[in-house]
Amino acid sequence: MDGRLKFYGWGAENTGLDEAERGRLFRFLSDRFKIEPRLVAPPQVTDVALRDPRVTPPRAIAHLFHSDPHERLLHTYGKSYPETVRAYARDFNDAPDLVVFPRIESDISAVLDWASASRIAVIPFGCGSSVVGGVVPQIAEDYAGVVSLDLRQLDGVLEIDTTSRAARIQGGIRGPAIEAALKPHGLSLRHYPQSFEFSTLGGWIATRSGGHFATLYTHIDDFVESIRTVTPAGIMESRRLPGSGAGPSPDRMIIGSEGTLGVIVDAWIRLQHRPRFRAGAVFGFPDFFAAAKAVRAVGQAGLYPSNLRLIDNHEAGTYGVNNYEETLLILAFESADHPIDAWMLRAVELILDHGGRQHPNENAAVAWRTAFIRMPYARELTVPLNVINDTFESAVTWDKFEAFHTAVSTATKEAIEEATGRPGTVSTRFTHVYPDGPAPYYTFNALGAPGRLSQQWQHIKDRASRALLTAGGTITHHHAVGRDHMPWYREQRPALFGKAFDAAKTALDPARILNPGVLVP
Amino acid sequence: MDGRLKFYGWGAENTGLDEAERGRLFRFLSDRFKIEPRLVAPPQVTDVALRDPRVTPPRAIAHLFHSDPHERLLHTYGKSYPETVRAYARDFNDAPDLVVFPRIESDISAVLDWASASRIAVIPFGCGSSVVGGVVPQIAEDYAGVVSLDLRQLDGVLEIDTTSRAARIQGGIRGPAIEAALKPHGLSLRHYPQSFEFSTLGGWIATRSGGHFATLYTHIDDFVESIRTVTPAGIMESRRLPGSGAGPSPDRMIIGSEGTLGVIVDAWIRLQHRPRFRAGAVFGFPDFFAAAKAVRAVGQAGLYPSNLRLIDNHEAGTYGVNNYEETLLILAFESADHPIDAWMLRAVELILDHGGRQHPNENAAVAWRTAFIRMPYARELTVPLNVINDTFESAVTWDKFEAFHTAVSTATKEAIEEATGRPGTVSTRFTHVYPDGPAPYYTFNALGAPGRLSQQWQHIKDRASRALLTAGGTITHHHAVGRDHMPWYREQRPALFGKAFDAAKTALDPARILNPGVLVP
Repeated sequence: MDGRLKFYGWGAENTGLDEAERGRLFRFLSDRFKIEPRLVAPPQVTDVALRDPRVTPPRAIAHLFHSDPHERLLHTYGKSYPETVRAYARDFNDAPDLVVFPRIESDISAVLDWASASRIAVIPFGCGSSVVGGVVPQIAEDYAGVVSLDLRQLDGVLEIDTTSRAARIQGGIRGPAIEAALKPHGLSLRHYPQSFEFSTLGGWIATRSGGHFATLYTHIDDFVESIRTVTPAGIMESRRLPGSGAGPSPDRMIIGSEGTLGVIVDAWIRLQHRPRFRAGAVFGFPDFFAAAKAVRAVGQAGLYPSNLRLIDNHEAGTYGVNNYEETLLILAFESADHPIDAWMLRAVELILDHGGRQHPNENAAVAWRTAFIRMPYARELTVPLNVINDTFESAVTWDKFEAFHTAVSTATKEAIEEATGRPGTVSTRFTHVYPDGPAPYYTFNALGAPGRLSQQWQHIKDRASRALLTAGGTITHHHAVGRDHMPWYREQRPALFGKAFDAAKTALDPARILNPGVLVP
Repeated sequence: MDGRLKFYGWGAENTGLDEAERGRLFRFLSDRFKIEPRLVAPPQVTDVALRDPRVTPPRAIAHLFHSDPHERLLHTYGKSYPETVRAYARDFNDAPDLVVFPRIESDISAVLDWASASRIAVIPFGCGSSVVGGVVPQIAEDYAGVVSLDLRQLDGVLEIDTTSRAARIQGGIRGPAIEAALKPHGLSLRHYPQSFEFSTLGGWIATRSGGHFATLYTHIDDFVESIRTVTPAGIMESRRLPGSGAGPSPDRMIIGSEGTLGVIVDAWIRLQHRPRFRAGAVFGFPDFFAAAKAVRAVGQAGLYPSNLRLIDNHEAGTYGVNNYEETLLILAFESADHPIDAWMLRAVELILDHGGRQHPNENAAVAWRTAFIRMPYARELTVPLNVINDTFESAVTWDKFEAFHTAVSTATKEAIEEATGRPGTVSTRFTHVYPDGPAPYYTFNALGAPGRLSQQWQHIKDRASRALLTAGGTITHHHAVGRDHMPWYREQRPALFGKAFDAAKTALDPARILNPGVLVP
C-alpha cells in the first residue's frame, strides 16, 4: 500500500515527477512562456484552518467517522484545475464536516438513514480523481452539513467466475488491486483510465469512465453485468445477465449517475483473458485531417484494434515524442486467443492507403504512454507557476468532425489570448474511436496571472465548451459531468430526460442528500 | 406493397406456407400427435360483432381516426399464442375503440393531448408482431376508452450520412423498406429479427429487438445514435453522438420502454457497409453441452462471428435439417472490408478442438434459415388443430448454463404432460452469444384440448418461466415484456428500479395513458 495521499495533487505524498521529467516540463514551459520555472513548496495541513464540524453522527455509527484535518482536506477536492488552484490558495472553505469510512454495506445504509433524516449531504468518494468537480462538497446552504463517504474499505474482489469470465468486485477497490486479484486466474479487467492507480471501480461505473480499448469496448458500461447499489430508499441489485431485453436496463440508470442515486457497493464485471499476442505500429501523417480519415477507415473496417490513437503534431511534440513535425497514429492489436497478423496487415494497409508513413521509431507509442501516465503529477508544479493547463474531451460524428475540430481548437486558442493576453498551446488526440465518430481530447497550456487563474481558466473553459456543444459534440465523453459541466450538460440533455431523471432521483433519494448539485439540483 | 394484413395470423392475406411446407408441417404433427391435420378456414371480419366505439376524437384530428372493423380487429392482437387462440375463437372483446394513423409528428402530439385530457389509453402500434401481448388493448376499466396508434405512415428514411454510416429513420418503417432505401448507398442496417418483414424500427427500439448478428451487436440498442420521442409531456430528442459519458444515457431509458413513455417518431441509427466477404460452415456434435462449450470458446475468442448458432438435435430434426441425430453449430463470418479467412480458420479450429465434426451438408444453414423465416406462418394452421406451439427465450451466464438448460427443458416437458396428459416436444437453439453467456431459445409443441388451449398454454408458460427465473436467466432476451411477462418481470426487475421507472413514467406521461399494464401498472 502506498503512503498517505496528497490533498493538493496527484498520488501519494513524496511521489511525483522525477528530475528528468521535471526538467523536460520546465524546459517546455520556459520555451513557451519565457518563464523561469522553480519548485514551490506545496500546502501543508497546518496551513489551513478548518471550521468545526457542524454535524454529529449518532453513537451507533460514530466510530466510522473521522474529523482528522488531513482526511477533511483530502476529501475537499478532486483533481480539476480550479480545485488545484484553490488548494494552493489554501482555500478549503468547502471541506466536508466529516469523512465516513463504511466497512460493510449496512454501514452505508446507516449513514444514509441518518443523513436523510437530518438533511445532511453525502458525497460518495472513491479515490477523488474527478477532474470535473464531481466530489467537492459544494452544497446549498439549506443542508445542515456535508459528509464525504469514502469507499476505500470496500476493496475486495469477492467472487471470480472463470467460466463466464466475470468477477464480483467491490466499489471502493482501485485499479492495481483489481488486476492483482485477477492475475492468478489468467484474467484481467483491462480497464486503464489515466487515473487507474488512484480511482475505483465504483467511481468508474458512476462516471462512465473510458478505458484501455480504443474501439469496441470503450466505456466501463460495456463490462457491467450487474450492479448492487445502496440508495437512501434501500438496496437495489440487478440480476447478473450476459444480455437482456426485459425493459430498459436498470444498470444503465446507475451507470453515469455520479453518486446522485446511490452508492455502488459492488458489481459483476466482465473480464478478459490476459493477452498473449500483440502487435503494434506507429504511423506519421503530415496532415491531421488526412490522419483522421485513416482512423475512420480502420474504425469502420470491423477490425477492432485495442489502440487506434491519433496524436496531433502539437501533442506529439509536447510529449517529446517527435519534433512537432507530424501527426502520429498509434495502432495496436492484442489477443488472448490467436495471432493477429491478418488484423494487423489489413489495418496497416488501410493506413498506408490513406497516406500514412510507417514510423521508424516503434518506441514512440511507449514514450507517449509513459508521459501520459505521469502527466497528472505535473499540475502541482505548474499551478504555482501560474500556468493554466487543462484538458477537455468530447465525441462527435464523422460528418461533423472537421468543422468541429476547427471550431473547438480555434475557440480555445482565441479564448486563451482573450483571457491571458498571450498565445497558449492547444493539442489534440483521439482517445477512443467509434465507427460513427471519434472521441477527440484537447490539452491546453496558457500563462495566467496570479490571483486570476480560476477566472482565466473559466473563460477558456466557457468558450471551448460553447464551441464543442455548438459544433455537435458531447460536453464529455468520459470525464463525466460533475459540477463543472452542469451548465452545458443541462443544455445537451433532453429537457424531458432531465425531468424523468429528477423524478427517478426523488424515488430513490427522497431527501435529496446524495451529491446535490450534480446532474440534478 | 403487399396486401391487407391478416388480423388472425402472420403476414398478408392470401399468403402462408406453400403446399410442400404445409405437407412437412402436417407430417410432423401427425407423426408426433397421431392426428389427421386438415385445413380450417380462418376467421372473417364478418364473424365478429364489435361494440361501438366509446370515444369520439375532436374535430381537428377526427380525420386521422378509423373505426373500420378490419382495422380494429387487426389492432386487437399481436402474434402471441394465446392471442391467436382468442382470434380463432372470434373473441375480440379487447378491440380498440378506434385506430389512429398520424401522418406527422404533430398529429401524435394532438392525439396524446386529447387522450391525456380524456383518460383514453393509447397503444403505440408498429406492425403488431409482439409475441408477448405488447399491443393488445387490455386496459383497466377506469379508462374512458382505448385507441391503437399505428405509425405506418411515418415510414421514411429521412437522411443518410454516408460518412458516419448512419441514417435518420422514421419509427413506422418496416424492415424491407429500410433496406431498400439504404441499398443504393451501399449501406445496410443488417438487423433481421424473425419478424423483419412485419415489424418496424420504432418497435425494434421499443422492445430491444434481437437481430442479425449472433455476437457483438446483438440488440438494436447498439445501433441507436439518438432517438426522437413524442411523449404526453412534449418532445424529447437526444443528441446524435457516437458515444458519450454525460450522465446516464437518455436513449437507454427509451430503449425497451415498450410504448409506455412515448412514441418513437424517428431515430439516428448506425449502419453497416454491405458485406463483400462471407464464409460459413456447419458442424455436428453428438452432445449438446459439448457443442455449447465450443460456442463458449468461439464466443470468448474475440472473433465476433456474424453467426454462431447452436441448434439442438430436436430442433434440427423438427426443421427437417437432419434426422434428429446431432446438434448443429452454424458458424459464419462476413465483412465489407477484408477477407475473413484468418477469422474463419481460427473459429473452425476451436470448434474442431471441442469435438465438432464438419458437416458435409453446407446447405443445412440455408435450410434452417428458410424454415425459420417461414415459421410464423405455421400457427394459423396449428391453432385450429388444437396444437399448442410457442417459443420463449432467455440469457444466462455460462457458469449456470448447464443447470439452467436442464431445469428449463425438464420443467417444460413436465408441464406439457401435466397440462395435456401426453408428451410434447421441446427443442433449443442459441440465438445470440455473449462472452459471458448464451441466449437460449426454446420451442415447444403439445397437443391440447379444444376450449382449454389458453389455460393449458398458461400452465406450460408458468412453469417454464418459473424455471428459467429460478435458474438465473432473464424472462426475456429479445421478445420483450408486454403483458404476458409482467409477473416474472416484476420479480426480476430490482424493486427500486421499478419505483424509479414509475416515477420517470409519471414525469413523461402524467395521465398514464400510454400502454397501461406494460412495465408499470
